[in-house]
Amino acid sequence: MARAAGSDVDHARRGSIDAVLASRHAGTRKLRLNYELVGPADAPVVFVAGGISAHRHVAANALDAGNGWAEGLVAAGRALDPSCTRILAFDYVGACGGIDAPIDTADQADAVALLLDALGIDRLEAFVGYSYGALVGLQLATRHPQRLRKLVAVSGAHRPHPYASAWRALQRKAVALGQLQCADEQGLSLARQFAMLSYRTPEEFGERFDAAPTLSNGHVRVAAEDYLDAAGAKFVARIPATAWLRLSESIDLHAVDPAQVAVPTLVIAVEGDRLVPLSDAVSLVEGLGLNGRLRVLRSQYGHDAFLKETDRIDAMLAAELRPRPASEPIPNFSTDSIGVSV
Amino acid sequence: MARAAGSDVDHARRGSIDAVLASRHAGTRKLRLNYELVGPADAPVVFVAGGISAHRHVAANALDAGNGWAEGLVAAGRALDPSCTRILAFDYVGACGGIDAPIDTADQADAVALLLDALGIDRLEAFVGYSYGALVGLQLATRHPQRLRKLVAVSGAHRPHPYASAWRALQRKAVALGQLQCADEQGLSLARQFAMLSYRTPEEFGERFDAAPTLSNGHVRVAAEDYLDAAGAKFVARIPATAWLRLSESIDLHAVDPAQVAVPTLVIAVEGDRLVPLSDAVSLVEGLGLNGRLRVLRSQYGHDAFLKETDRIDAMLAAELRPRPASEPIPNFSTDSIGVSV
Repeated sequence: MARAAGSDVDHARRGSIDAVLASRHAGTRKLRLNYELVGPADAPVVFVAGGISAHRHVAANALDAGNGWAEGLVAAGRALDPSCTRILAFDYVGACGGIDAPIDTADQADAVALLLDALGIDRLEAFVGYSYGALVGLQLATRHPQRLRKLVAVSGAHRPHPYASAWRALQRKAVALGQLQCADEQGLSLARQFAMLSYRTPEEFGERFDAAPTLSNGHVRVAAEDYLDAAGAKFVARIPATAWLRLSESIDLHAVDPAQVAVPTLVIAVEGDRLVPLSDAVSLVEGLGLNGRLRVLRSQYGHDAFLKETDRIDAMLAAELRPRPASEPIPNFSTDSIGVSV
Repeated sequence: MARAAGSDVDHARRGSIDAVLASRHAGTRKLRLNYELVGPADAPVVFVAGGISAHRHVAANALDAGNGWAEGLVAAGRALDPSCTRILAFDYVGACGGIDAPIDTADQADAVALLLDALGIDRLEAFVGYSYGALVGLQLATRHPQRLRKLVAVSGAHRPHPYASAWRALQRKAVALGQLQCADEQGLSLARQFAMLSYRTPEEFGERFDAAPTLSNGHVRVAAEDYLDAAGAKFVARIPATAWLRLSESIDLHAVDPAQVAVPTLVIAVEGDRLVPLSDAVSLVEGLGLNGRLRVLRSQYGHDAFLKETDRIDAMLAAELRPRPASEPIPNFSTDSIGVSV
């Protein structure tokens, strides 16, 4: 059940729907789902979903000229061009911090389906998910396969890797340690800083922060600390602690059986991703069988490559999403065709 | 200046010396250096040094039957056999938590020299250092090259890698967050848990903790958390926060010019070490020139391989430390001879 409300300006629509979601771990809940939908009304719709701190504003548009989180991927001339594709995105369930209960990636996928119902969209041309968005896309393709023609899952797999889960669990403990003593912001900032180490790579740090430490107030301060402090402060100003905690947990609750994914799926993995090892992307694609294909990107940006290697990601999306004449065969979706981009 | 005191039982000596150390960042200090020296009085002396939480008790002996931190490496039949080698080890400067000021690896090396003075040991047959011990060994071979015939530096390099420094800086912030309001132990425990992720590898976690998370008090608990909690609790019970903070900082202050290392040095690096990347070990060996040789170990235990792959480390030590007849040529110490053990 969903009811749509919003405003339209020059092919940009920003609105919200009220929906009732039967959540997996937290009972049936009334939710407000906030979305943006940008592009010509008759164009095919592509849903774009990002990391746990992403939101509905993917790129500047007629209603909101501010930069979005996927500015380099959704733009004129890109594979995701809002002049010929309708780009749909939403705020994740729990992103407002209003749900202090376990949230599942399956809940997010059900919320996407409710949003499509409310907007009268039968079927997406594609769902393009990065990081957490890839997990949600895999759930959507499992639970609601009729709602999308194809899935592009970037830097996400069918399961959390146990090492990455441990890393996130310790970040959550940093928040809990801060909350013990009303130092909530410091706890969340520290969690974010630890997360940054998992999003990036030693190679990048080696290039950016190759400087001797300093002594400050009798303590050692290393070269990356200014950068990390700034990343923490920026995050704390933007994300409620409860939202972050519950969405972080949600990654660790994620579980999809690749054999149940019933939609052609392109998996884009980054060699050197410290959260989603290439071996898990390969397992996913093996499990997808004829529905799966893998492309591997080498990047010193690791898990965050989708935010930094926008030209190369765009080239992969362009090859995947461009309309094909009926006479052209669909590329062979098998694990034999593994492309590596260097 | 140093004065020795101690007790001797059946080739095992445990004692302490009072020394005056001109420290690099914290002025001239009176120190008590605690050591153990085990083995026949006429045997060649090998100094063994471990990570920042290691200590003078490397292995069970006549004075202390409890297990040491290097039990698998120092034992009858091993390359480090206390029946035919004198094994010397000490507690690092600052390990008692009594120095709340920056400590340098150069200070540790100077303390080793003072200890050798007090014990009347002119020259070590070898200094075998693991992790932090490797950094101290490199300083010793730079500052006091006449005190050792050879150096074996395992899982340590001439500089801290900027990514590893960032990781340690965040661990120190976890301690600071705990200290904000007298939750010192929780802060130090969290720091240790984050450190464990840097000491081990995703491969090991993937094998050990491949289980679904549970929900506990409405929160997600992942499979590795019991292990990590236990590791944190064990550490907190053993190590004063100040000791850990200052020795952690000490790693980030470490800087040695490989060209100044004036002693034949075997560098043993672990592929997959998340703190000391192989590329830094290679740089070190390149800088060592004719004094340097590299052996590479592949291990799923990463930085902690020296504690886990004791058979393989011992085999490398045996090849390095066994007495050679005068007629046998010394192996070619050059970067051309890079051995990889798989």
